[in-house]
Amino acid sequence: MNLPHVQPLPGLPQRVRIHEVGPRDGLQNEPNIVPVEVKAEFIARLADAGLTTIEATSFVHPKWVPQLADAGELMDRLERRPGVRYPVLVPNERGLDRALQAGVETIAIFGSATESFARRNLNRTVAESIAMFGPVVRRAREAGLEVRAYLSMCFGDPWEGAVPVNQVVSVGRRLLDLGCTELSLGDTIGVATPGHVTELLRAFGEAGVGPDRLAVHFHDTYGQALANTLAALQAGVATVDSSAGGLGGCPYAKSATGNLATEDLVWMLTGLGIDHGVDLAKLAATSRWMAERLGRPSPSRVVQALADEPEARSDKECPCSTTG
Amino acid sequence: MNLPHVQPLPGLPQRVRIHEVGPRDGLQNEPNIVPVEVKAEFIARLADAGLTTIEATSFVHPKWVPQLADAGELMDRLERRPGVRYPVLVPNERGLDRALQAGVETIAIFGSATESFARRNLNRTVAESIAMFGPVVRRAREAGLEVRAYLSMCFGDPWEGAVPVNQVVSVGRRLLDLGCTELSLGDTIGVATPGHVTELLRAFGEAGVGPDRLAVHFHDTYGQALANTLAALQAGVATVDSSAGGLGGCPYAKSATGNLATEDLVWMLTGLGIDHGVDLAKLAATSRWMAERLGRPSPSRVVQALADEPEARSDKECPCSTTG
Repeated sequence: MNLPHVQPLPGLPQRVRIHEVGPRDGLQNEPNIVPVEVKAEFIARLADAGLTTIEATSFVHPKWVPQLADAGELMDRLERRPGVRYPVLVPNERGLDRALQAGVETIAIFGSATESFARRNLNRTVAESIAMFGPVVRRAREAGLEVRAYLSMCFGDPWEGAVPVNQVVSVGRRLLDLGCTELSLGDTIGVATPGHVTELLRAFGEAGVGPDRLAVHFHDTYGQALANTLAALQAGVATVDSSAGGLGGCPYAKSATGNLATEDLVWMLTGLGIDHGVDLAKLAATSRWMAERLGRPSPSRVVQALADEPEARSDKECPCSTTG
Repeated sequence: MNLPHVQPLPGLPQRVRIHEVGPRDGLQNEPNIVPVEVKAEFIARLADAGLTTIEATSFVHPKWVPQLADAGELMDRLERRPGVRYPVLVPNERGLDRALQAGVETIAIFGSATESFARRNLNRTVAESIAMFGPVVRRAREAGLEVRAYLSMCFGDPWEGAVPVNQVVSVGRRLLDLGCTELSLGDTIGVATPGHVTELLRAFGEAGVGPDRLAVHFHDTYGQALANTLAALQAGVATVDSSAGGLGGCPYAKSATGNLATEDLVWMLTGLGIDHGVDLAKLAATSRWMAERLGRPSPSRVVQALADEPEARSDKECPCSTTG
């Protein structure tokens, strides 16, 4: 297997924690419902590959996300390993009750940086949704759980266009002030570019929120996810969301190039000499296995490239003609 | 059409010249031969979209690149516009004669940073290939032409693995010393990561070759091309090679995710507030038109995403479910 030559870039974090979202963010956007035993095996394989934070499912009402209606059963089936966390999405107190019953250590709530998306996704204003999450976060923290807050539409919004940086910081701070332990900044429609990322992280810093409390969640809709990740690493962020094989993302983009693929992220981190703990070959094999079950190829460049690699290269075979 | 919010990143070039390689590097790797009138229209459309450097074809012997056997006829047909350059690849003095006859302003020669690829691609050692290009460059310069030098395998080589930075600098300097006006550093197999890019550009600088004489040519085989481009921009490089629609690349990778897609590059440059002169909508339309002629979709994320965009978004339509 080809691997990048390791060459660190000064000023980057020494270690990055990958927050794997494939089983939840990936599979919730699948047109077909994946059997619970396949989900459980997927998660077990991701843990085998070295991932230590694997967002497992969502306790959102099955009416909204039928793909994850088996959340309770999945959590029962999961063979939980020491050192691995399996966060679940929780929309309200009833969801929290189910999560507590399932014995999770980390929940995730989800807000929107824009009123348009808050109304459409949560059927509430931004302020109402933060108020709704207040008791969820308080009770979860009292129960000793960690609480991640997702913030959607941090860069652009399909209805509102570019989202002002100060507006994102304001909503993000209110989520952290509820008691959330981590804030994941989502480029839900994938329009961000590296200068925008740098500017948003700078603004959070000025508002007293350092990169140690932030994660980034980029979508590759316009091919920018990894360049944006580099900009975030340069700003000190050390938690990066990604999805094995690039599963999932925004279903309104038929091309299904949604989430940053974990494999593409791992390739870059390895080359940068940043510790991530993931076995790339095992991870790519897992994504190929999942792609077979879903009946279509992974959009991850790395997964595709590793599948195309000849086992042994013949002496005559020329990988590229003439130049390039 | 969605567009990124413009947010400059300090320290980057104000303007980037895109060296469009689709008609040459893209089409030379196509399994089928594209009719010469389609090639001519492709190049005209690229110029319409605002590209000012469009590598048109190659005067390599048709035995090696039958896809471009119509180089002379294509150059005859080309309606050349003021302010647009149409470089052609030239392998030897005979190729130069043909290029001079066709009235080109810029030629490109091509060397290898590794002995393995020099032997396979040029059937010569690195030293022999540089010696062969000597009279080509001298005569071209005497005729008032600009000469670009491509250098392949600048980061990794399928036979030799990681390529030492000093070796790349040494071969690159010898090509520039021949009289070449620009050196394009190629990550032919797509294995580079941003730290490696930064290190190579730093080493060139220490050897007296500043970023003003350098271009970068990244392949997206492992999804790294745009992150690497960002690192190159941060090191001061202001000439970037890319291919409309992501055409071409390395045919040994069946997935055909070869060259960095010009559209993905343009998206990032626009967001960074860097002047590039390209009309993205026209360019993406050209790539879709070409993809129809080739019978398969463009691998460019931006081309795919723009094709998926609804003309008008309904009020109820939710682009992303629940979170992300």
